[in-house]
Amino acid sequence: MEEQNKVTILQQLGRLLDALHTKKPLIHHLTNYVTVNDCANATLAIGASPIMADDIAEAGDIAAIASALVINIGTLNSRSISSMLEAGKRANAAGVPVVFDPVGAGASALRNTTTQRILSEIKPAVIRGNISEMKFIAGISAKAKGVDAGEADISFSLEDTIAMAKKLSGELQCIVAITGKTDIITDGSKTVLLHNGHPMLSSVTGTGCLTSSLVGSYCGATTDYFLAAIAGILTTSIAGEIAHKQAGHLGTGSFHIALIDAISKMSPDHFTQYANITIK
Amino acid sequence: MEEQNKVTILQQLGRLLDALHTKKPLIHHLTNYVTVNDCANATLAIGASPIMADDIAEAGDIAAIASALVINIGTLNSRSISSMLEAGKRANAAGVPVVFDPVGAGASALRNTTTQRILSEIKPAVIRGNISEMKFIAGISAKAKGVDAGEADISFSLEDTIAMAKKLSGELQCIVAITGKTDIITDGSKTVLLHNGHPMLSSVTGTGCLTSSLVGSYCGATTDYFLAAIAGILTTSIAGEIAHKQAGHLGTGSFHIALIDAISKMSPDHFTQYANITIK
Amino acid sequence: MEEQNKVTILQQLGRLLDALHTKKPLIHHLTNYVTVNDCANATLAIGASPIMADDIAEAGDIAAIASALVINIGTLNSRSISSMLEAGKRANAAGVPVVFDPVGAGASALRNTTTQRILSEIKPAVIRGNISEMKFIAGISAKAKGVDAGEADISFSLEDTIAMAKKLSGELQCIVAITGKTDIITDGSKTVLLHNGHPMLSSVTGTGCLTSSLVGSYCGATTDYFLAAIAGILTTSIAGEIAHKQAGHLGTGSFHIALIDAISKMSPDHFTQYANITIK
Repeated sequence: MEEQNKVTILQQLGRLLDALHTKKPLIHHLTNYVTVNDCANATLAIGASPIMADDIAEAGDIAAIASALVINIGTLNSRSISSMLEAGKRANAAGVPVVFDPVGAGASALRNTTTQRILSEIKPAVIRGNISEMKFIAGISAKAKGVDAGEADISFSLEDTIAMAKKLSGELQCIVAITGKTDIITDGSKTVLLHNGHPMLSSVTGTGCLTSSLVGSYCGATTDYFLAAIAGILTTSIAGEIAHKQAGHLGTGSFHIALIDAISKMSPDHFTQYANITIK
Repeated sequence: MEEQNKVTILQQLGRLLDALHTKKPLIHHLTNYVTVNDCANATLAIGASPIMADDIAEAGDIAAIASALVINIGTLNSRSISSMLEAGKRANAAGVPVVFDPVGAGASALRNTTTQRILSEIKPAVIRGNISEMKFIAGISAKAKGVDAGEADISFSLEDTIAMAKKLSGELQCIVAITGKTDIITDGSKTVLLHNGHPMLSSVTGTGCLTSSLVGSYCGATTDYFLAAIAGILTTSIAGEIAHKQAGHLGTGSFHIALIDAISKMSPDHFTQYANITIK
Repeated sequence: MEEQNKVTILQQLGRLLDALHTKKPLIHHLTNYVTVNDCANATLAIGASPIMADDIAEAGDIAAIASALVINIGTLNSRSISSMLEAGKRANAAGVPVVFDPVGAGASALRNTTTQRILSEIKPAVIRGNISEMKFIAGISAKAKGVDAGEADISFSLEDTIAMAKKLSGELQCIVAITGKTDIITDGSKTVLLHNGHPMLSSVTGTGCLTSSLVGSYCGATTDYFLAAIAGILTTSIAGEIAHKQAGHLGTGSFHIALIDAISKMSPDHFTQYANITIK
């Protein structure tokens, strides 16, 4: 039974990638200036079209005509926060799915209040973060240290994390994705665990950010945001495995480039061949 | 006759590249934060020296001492718009050539009014854009979708586009360059078509932006801005062909790196060997 | 005697790299948007954890909990200047070492006044710049042209430069590092010259910036900031030599990637094998 469900999901993922290639959705980004180039290149690599427009005079207009909006709080400022709220509301009003990446939530008061404000004023389709960030959102004090997942989080079991993700999904009425060694994606009732990826992904900045861009790209080609979240995260994870085989021995610079290469060559067959998933 | 003109142009392009290498001109950029790193690296790769200084307290001062100024509206905000206008005026006053890249013109009210304001307050030496952007500037409603050239533009014939470019060049009294499958560069009377390039160039973000940086780099080494525009666009197009041969099969990440490699190894011989041009 | 001192320093450098790998220090950056991605990736490549948070609402809070703060004035604006001052003061108060990279000091009034203000309000642990920038700081009129070292500087002898560095170190009570063909690092009494590196390092944007990030990364793992400055600069220089051997013939794009690769594979053995230093 589970085996059959897996086959079904992998087929759906393949069809979603084909749909993305056909539609070439426009993905608007309000994101940080550290990893924005990788977000744009990953979006192009998977077959979508990126745009970054963060002035309040156009952020909302472009959100309303985009196929998806990615909000990433990696480098906040008062100007960009207003634009995020404006763009998010316009996207919500226009039925454009919003992917929210709460980078560094828990690490500073500014990120905390901004995360809370975004979640109270905007309804995301998908939230994707690491365990530290998602614990903050879940109201559980996370020992966040910077923008990477904290050490304290290791004590939190996989089952605890799944329970938290499901609860959060129910409360926020959106897809919740917690990425880490095992990725957890849930719509509150169905939960998928992904066991792909490679530790080297955390040695390049922005692999989380570009995963959110990929989730946004897939969201721009379907209304099944649960499937889109799985597809985006699986794309990075599989590409990470391929990149490691290809270039991991050379160093993190070559791995970074091989990662974009692998995203640009992702096909439905890759999902079938590589995906290591559990359905709960 | 045309054959002889071609030989002459290719020789002039080669001498211009040599002049650039000797002068190492300082190229000031007011550009977007998505592709700025590639703009800087392409500028260095061709042998010029990039500077990005977008605060109004220094944007004008640096424009006045630079060899060329590139204005790119890829990610606008109220602060950067003021700096663009200030820098452009100071460059005009100092006789420093301005290259204008109207990224996404037609895609939002902010980009449209900013484009209009720049063109009414600043006299560019060269405008370089894709067909959607240039149609907006020409006052023909372009169905712009984001920052890439729209599909509706396919119905516009090459002859229509050349006529539009020439008219625009006469009206704005500057070199007009429309890049696409065939690149069109005109000073209003002479027109050159470039048939080089590779479709993979549109799968990496910023290849248009870095082309404008290359045009700026060449403008910083000559007063013949028509030749500079040809040289800049041809450099990207030839480098794109070389990069595709070298690394296209690996994916878009490796293609991106090979593109910068090829720009850094561009020599007068490359123009003679690769250039596929038509003089009208 | 000098030979024995060299062996001691190389051993200390090796132990510092090991300490960095163990501690994974959090390195806060207030830096420019041109090279920020390379700064983050170099920080990760050497084994530290980068964060960039430039809004005044969080810049100070994060500086106070970081292991080191890097202030780089490559692209200034009024907003970021306030954040730099706030973060620097909070770092000083918390005993967090500050690395200051005065990019383009001497090139505009804004950079000059900002440099002066930073030095009057913040006490850096290390200042790292090129000869043009450091001459400006030393109050000697440097003919700065953009953000790269000016030509006029060639007339200044190595002995003159060492004397200037030592004087500056005494005045500012911090480590002074002047990078160029020969790198000079001094604490006012001890001076080390580094003869590693490769000219191709200046053909990629941000190799100076990422060196400051590396110095910051090492500062985050020791209280010996003299050793940290040597380690950071030597890491880039040795990585530049390795990258040139590996990929220099391919062009500047591949060299750039190979540089990050080499930083990510740096080990204590590399210092022993490659370091070419003189102790004064």
